[in-house]
Amino acid sequence: MSEPVKWCVAVIGCGLIGESWAALCLAHGHDVRAWDPAAERREGFAERLTRPLAQLAEVGQTGPGGNLPRGHLTVTASLPEAVAQADIVQENAPEQIPLKRALYTEIEAAATEDAIIASSTSALTWSDLTPEMRNPDRFITAHPFNPPHLIPLVELYGTQERVLERAEAFYRGIGRIPARLKKDAVGHIANRLASALWREAVHIVAEDIADVASVDAALRHGPGLRWSVVGAHMAYHLGGGTGGMAHYLAHLGPSQARRWKTLGSRDLTPEVCDLLIAGIAEEAAGRSIADLEAERDAGLIRALKVREKDNDV
Amino acid sequence: MSEPVKWCVAVIGCGLIGESWAALCLAHGHDVRAWDPAAERREGFAERLTRPLAQLAEVGQTGPGGNLPRGHLTVTASLPEAVAQADIVQENAPEQIPLKRALYTEIEAAATEDAIIASSTSALTWSDLTPEMRNPDRFITAHPFNPPHLIPLVELYGTQERVLERAEAFYRGIGRIPARLKKDAVGHIANRLASALWREAVHIVAEDIADVASVDAALRHGPGLRWSVVGAHMAYHLGGGTGGMAHYLAHLGPSQARRWKTLGSRDLTPEVCDLLIAGIAEEAAGRSIADLEAERDAGLIRALKVREKDNDV
Repeated sequence: MSEPVKWCVAVIGCGLIGESWAALCLAHGHDVRAWDPAAERREGFAERLTRPLAQLAEVGQTGPGGNLPRGHLTVTASLPEAVAQADIVQENAPEQIPLKRALYTEIEAAATEDAIIASSTSALTWSDLTPEMRNPDRFITAHPFNPPHLIPLVELYGTQERVLERAEAFYRGIGRIPARLKKDAVGHIANRLASALWREAVHIVAEDIADVASVDAALRHGPGLRWSVVGAHMAYHLGGGTGGMAHYLAHLGPSQARRWKTLGSRDLTPEVCDLLIAGIAEEAAGRSIADLEAERDAGLIRALKVREKDNDV
Repeated sequence: MSEPVKWCVAVIGCGLIGESWAALCLAHGHDVRAWDPAAERREGFAERLTRPLAQLAEVGQTGPGGNLPRGHLTVTASLPEAVAQADIVQENAPEQIPLKRALYTEIEAAATEDAIIASSTSALTWSDLTPEMRNPDRFITAHPFNPPHLIPLVELYGTQERVLERAEAFYRGIGRIPARLKKDAVGHIANRLASALWREAVHIVAEDIADVASVDAALRHGPGLRWSVVGAHMAYHLGGGTGGMAHYLAHLGPSQARRWKTLGSRDLTPEVCDLLIAGIAEEAAGRSIADLEAERDAGLIRALKVREKDNDV
């Protein structure tokens, strides 16, 4: 099958994640047909894309060469109308297994046999979602990282190499960087890493080693900045000097293993929650969620503008 | 005591970390007196600063206003000559307790009473290092993150607020961003977070969920990029929507706790080490350590050029 230059993308679920996917696809010249069961989320959807589309234009995410006309957006009144012509369906429903399974039954009934069905699920796995599907082979999990139109990562898992290759080409085409899982896993890769780090970040606060704002500052100006350029494994490869990872493991592996034993794990008791809530209020220092999001987006946009497309360290 | 505009900085230990500190101090107009017990590390020290100094100039780290003349470098033949006039002594010796303790005895004998004595130690704690000191009150741990002249973080712990305030002002003056510990801890903050994350990164490879290169790609293009802008606690505050951290903890805290239970911990067995070594070779794809370091530095320099000085999200 030859791939379309202009894909028809069905966006199912018009919340924040759906907005990001729609903006990305439109910016890269694809047509989008969007649907949400809630009329209040269908209404005003086009207007809500103004901000992500402006941000994408700012970071140069405007299609190959930047000269493709923006795609066409249609908000449909029903699910079948959204998916009937779709080359790919991107589902962004709430994280409830029965709800998602029921949606896939509806999608399969209306979509063509070749359409890829992709779920943005962060908490559920491929195996959780597919048991009732007629053709699970064309189903993949394709998990973006919030805010999805600015963070390039999309994590892919599926069972058919051909489907994954088509999906990978599509996501690369809208400026995403795919990372493949070889096995279905709760939290995919990125949220497993984020959870592991946050567990220790909570422990540090609960142990009174440092306050919330200091932990966040240490992360942003230390390992976070470095991990935006060099992955965790690669950092230790470089930490091994000219001997690389083998030298690192032989000489510093034992001290890592010892440090692992000093790491903590805390229950999110009311006392720990109170510490986190008080600490984040201190860090926010009066800034509203909207202020903080705007600062986050501005910081991400500055960072994205200077990122090499093929930064492959 | 009024603080000098131009500090005299003793750099003890002329390896990679010493080079970074010396370059930072000189670039910001301070005088540096450097010493190392090994003649081969004293020799050529000035020449080895050429590259970090050029990198600092590239990111605009050339002192307040960028118009201070570069400081003066003296490589001394003995430790007392390096520390006698120092306002601050930055020690970068190997991570061995007896060695460091012996150095502090020598430093205390030669330095003025007001000199701050700071250790770059990553693996040891304030309590490990101070028992034999005459005046431990002016001793602090000041841990930079590799590569220290490019990564802004310095993690501070000490027992005297006045000393910490002076040190903090000094480090801010050379473009560093200090994060304070309230309690002595192995790995300070950043390496505890990095260890916690890497433990899971190793587990993901050992479980065959994803390969080394995919884990690194997911980190760099997902959470790493975001953590370079927004800390881990702040990310969940924003993940809670308008209800912030309190809403996040109430609604998604339990799912985090469940995810924590699925995270792994692996011994660095020969089999696991082989997987990591083979995986990193695949990711490096023939690039030497020097190539990879050059790419890392180039990526960091691009990121640093667009960072806001007071990016405080």
